Amino acid sequence: MKKIAIDCNSAFLYPMPMVLVGSIVGGKANFMAVAWVTRVNFKPPLFAIALGPHHTNKGIDENREFSINIPDVSLIEKTDYCGLVSGNKTDKSGIFNVFYGSLSKAPLIEECPISIAFSLYDAVKLPFNTLYIGEPKEVFTEEKYMTDNTLDIKKVHPFTLTMPDNNYWSVGENLGKAWKSGKSLKV
Amino acid sequence: MKKIAIDCNSAFLYPMPMVLVGSIVGGKANFMAVAWVTRVNFKPPLFAIALGPHHTNKGIDENREFSINIPDVSLIEKTDYCGLVSGNKTDKSGIFNVFYGSLSKAPLIEECPISIAFSLYDAVKLPFNTLYIGEPKEVFTEEKYMTDNTLDIKKVHPFTLTMPDNNYWSVGENLGKAWKSGKSLKV
Repeated sequence: MKKIAIDCNSAFLYPMPMVLVGSIVGGKANFMAVAWVTRVNFKPPLFAIALGPHHTNKGIDENREFSINIPDVSLIEKTDYCGLVSGNKTDKSGIFNVFYGSLSKAPLIEECPISIAFSLYDAVKLPFNTLYIGEPKEVFTEEKYMTDNTLDIKKVHPFTLTMPDNNYWSVGENLGKAWKSGKSLKV
Repeated sequence: MKKIAIDCNSAFLYPMPMVLVGSIVGGKANFMAVAWVTRVNFKPPLFAIALGPHHTNKGIDENREFSINIPDVSLIEKTDYCGLVSGNKTDKSGIFNVFYGSLSKAPLIEECPISIAFSLYDAVKLPFNTLYIGEPKEVFTEEKYMTDNTLDIKKVHPFTLTMPDNNYWSVGENLGKAWKSGKSLKV
């Protein structure tokens, strides 16, 4: 065995899904790039996003609403831009075409294949980040992103992130079915 | 705009990173397949895994230690198998070659390119799942998975999951640098 130990600060997931988190801060729609995100509960469906001390947090804390939008590969530059500049200094409200569902403080991105409006369920304070846990109230997509009434990742064309090398990656090929591939190993 | 609303229970991330969570339950190493996982804190590095009521939870609750192992594509069948059968009924301790760092209750998988031993930082109870937040104490890999002293996803060859269609996916091509691609949009 040739295992070596590396720095714990360099530990990440491989790869991480990229999303754009929308909020309303100071009356304006703001979007930030986030890759520390996961679904965290089965029923009700809950998601968590781990945010450092960002401009976005003010909007979520105040309005208790936010959005998660999944951008496709055509939106890489705009997504990256949202991660490069803070809403504190730059007005990002005009970068995307924004629409709203029933939650007036959860700005949704028309260009994104999937947009989810959340009400805040809980905010867990961690030493540096805040884990915002949200419950989806509305999920928007378009027929063209679906196959047999289910979202189809090959049509959604999302992208992922790796750290600390800081690269974006497309989704590759299908490797088989989950909860099925391993059946042959059952005794 | 041709947006349509879909069921909130069908909302997931696209795609989700697949990991194997290791624990010691009843004196035996046990591994479960998990895709609801993310890093959640910058310093100290913290990770969260969202687990339903599983056999694994007993081990984490009791020992306050666990592991996250990132399998490569060659381990898809074994990973899927770990998601199909419960440690409650099936002894999964012999599926992988297991090794340990300094944490005796965090079994690590030799075959996985990346293995991280965690001490439990906090457990957040959600309506169905428990969000186990852990602090990495040791991260193990091998030189062959690195380029310029950094983990290289093209060498690690991890895979991802989509739900509710339940498919596994490889990582595709490099799409550019994060915190750089969007610089051209800066005014």
